Amino acid sequence: MTTVAIVGAGLMGTATAYPLSDNGHNVRLVGTHLDRDIITSCRSRRIHPRLNRQLPASVRPFFVEEIGEALEGVDVIVSGVNSLGAHWIGDAIGPHVRPGQMIIAITKGLEATPSGDLIILPDVLRNTLPENVRDRVAIAAVGGPCIAGELAGRRPSCVTFGCRDFDAACKLAAIFHTTYYHIFPTADLVGIEYCAALKNAYTLAVGMAQGILEKAGGVDETGAHMFNLAAATFGQACTEIEQLLNLVGGSRQFAAGLPGAGDLYVTSMGGRTVRLGRLLGLGHSIDEALQIMAGETLESVYVIRQLGQALPGLTRQGLLAPGALPLMEALIDIIVAEQPAKIPLDAFFGGAWLT
Amino acid sequence: MTTVAIVGAGLMGTATAYPLSDNGHNVRLVGTHLDRDIITSCRSRRIHPRLNRQLPASVRPFFVEEIGEALEGVDVIVSGVNSLGAHWIGDAIGPHVRPGQMIIAITKGLEATPSGDLIILPDVLRNTLPENVRDRVAIAAVGGPCIAGELAGRRPSCVTFGCRDFDAACKLAAIFHTTYYHIFPTADLVGIEYCAALKNAYTLAVGMAQGILEKAGGVDETGAHMFNLAAATFGQACTEIEQLLNLVGGSRQFAAGLPGAGDLYVTSMGGRTVRLGRLLGLGHSIDEALQIMAGETLESVYVIRQLGQALPGLTRQGLLAPGALPLMEALIDIIVAEQPAKIPLDAFFGGAWLT
Repeated sequence: MTTVAIVGAGLMGTATAYPLSDNGHNVRLVGTHLDRDIITSCRSRRIHPRLNRQLPASVRPFFVEEIGEALEGVDVIVSGVNSLGAHWIGDAIGPHVRPGQMIIAITKGLEATPSGDLIILPDVLRNTLPENVRDRVAIAAVGGPCIAGELAGRRPSCVTFGCRDFDAACKLAAIFHTTYYHIFPTADLVGIEYCAALKNAYTLAVGMAQGILEKAGGVDETGAHMFNLAAATFGQACTEIEQLLNLVGGSRQFAAGLPGAGDLYVTSMGGRTVRLGRLLGLGHSIDEALQIMAGETLESVYVIRQLGQALPGLTRQGLLAPGALPLMEALIDIIVAEQPAKIPLDAFFGGAWLT
Repeated sequence: MTTVAIVGAGLMGTATAYPLSDNGHNVRLVGTHLDRDIITSCRSRRIHPRLNRQLPASVRPFFVEEIGEALEGVDVIVSGVNSLGAHWIGDAIGPHVRPGQMIIAITKGLEATPSGDLIILPDVLRNTLPENVRDRVAIAAVGGPCIAGELAGRRPSCVTFGCRDFDAACKLAAIFHTTYYHIFPTADLVGIEYCAALKNAYTLAVGMAQGILEKAGGVDETGAHMFNLAAATFGQACTEIEQLLNLVGGSRQFAAGLPGAGDLYVTSMGGRTVRLGRLLGLGHSIDEALQIMAGETLESVYVIRQLGQALPGLTRQGLLAPGALPLMEALIDIIVAEQPAKIPLDAFFGGAWLT
């Protein structure tokens, strides 16, 4: 039996409590300062109000002030915050982390340094831990398609756990793995984090097709949608993910696998990113769309901004050919340069295709 | 101005008449013996009854008996029949084909020889043409995500034209290309045909998730679907497409591109293959499901049967590792061995992942 603390009581962090609990582990669920209402509900009613589901019996909820008690003697810490909390989490758990522990992050994102390098968020977390422990803990991350409500509902799900220390990835997989939660370990942490971040960015483009359709008058009298447009965008997205994986030394086969195409598929099935894409496709500027969706965490926008900072440098250094990522460039134009939404179909598949 | 004959007046064949007509070409639309009602309607009312849309003015409809007249002096022949018509089309056009013409097929499929080799359908067509012309015409095929009703509705679509004679692929692209029909030429005819055939097979598996969900009681009280299951299946499908492309010397990058992930996405958005998959997921045997869908052309079943004939030989010859294609093997179990539907999640991503 293992003791696991989940820090961050949002949808995905909390969802991991279900397989852990079903495996007989002790689970401590620590809310952040944003999760106060959630922890209050979990304590008083044993209901997670956003998952809208009863907590498993082995889960003990903690407020953020109790984090020291919650992390006491744990074997595994789950970082359950979103990409905006990537710095906070290191500071919050730092004083309590002990050598030999394993940390696994559900956080998906990339962060551009002032020099334009892109850093994966598990490394951001690592760099904020105290120096005397940061190299003595294994830091892993989850990739692949996993809607939290389905995992908490014990619906079949496949994910990958990535850790540069492959043995740690396997140990973590053994702790979390259930008959409904299938886990594939990999040493390619960088590859799965790039996929996890990029799929948010590219889903925004796939979602734009719905808005473009509605702006053009919607489904026509013969029933024609714009699925062809969405599909071309989906294919170009996977192609660009493959190129970016190649650039950073990640496994190219992830693009046509679970962390790439699989996760892009599930993210495109609905949710915040698709709704934001629809607003852009309808003709709203990014400023208008963000006002309409005020209060929602939009990791797609965050990731595209980071890529907007990094791409010019990568192109200047000759690591990326000019025009190699036309869809990402279009997204940066829309999000950073506040241009109207446009999907540059004629620029797709150029380099890779004209054989 | 070019003169183009489309043989086969189904949805997709006829849809290609719209960009051709918009480009100012003469178009002759020849129905097969199955298309008699369609041609009658096209002649009397200028309406294609399945597309439910008016024919462009430059399109002349012909009955199958008039095929000689229709093919007289044409520059390009579009093979618009489905995979079941792959032998018929060669016999039908054979006597009228002239050296220097170009043929482009929308037919998607693979055919197993008695020895277990898989042949792409453009080569089946080639082999049924008279010997004195078969090597003196360019034979091309269309790949990529393209719902016929959207193309006919002049909605934005991206496809690829493949031909071993790359110049011919480029010439054909120049003839068909419009502001809404984006065409990427490639010399990798084999790669795009494998993708086009395989996406039908694998969409059947993605569609099964919906039936499995309904059988398990449907969307639960918290709103949980089984998108994670569909997404894992989608990712594994792209992975297996990549492995099969590698096996036959096709472009691996098609898996994470327009002909692979892109076409799988659009096919998974609905239609016959998804409906058949749902029936299997609900627990119907393939025999029951085929009875329920009697009268519909199910290319997915045809392709899976062909692979069922070919895979044992490929494994015996050492070209495929045992267990390399667990999802395809599951589909063969369901379709050929008439087993209950099952998605073998634990076998996914095995070989490629444990790095």
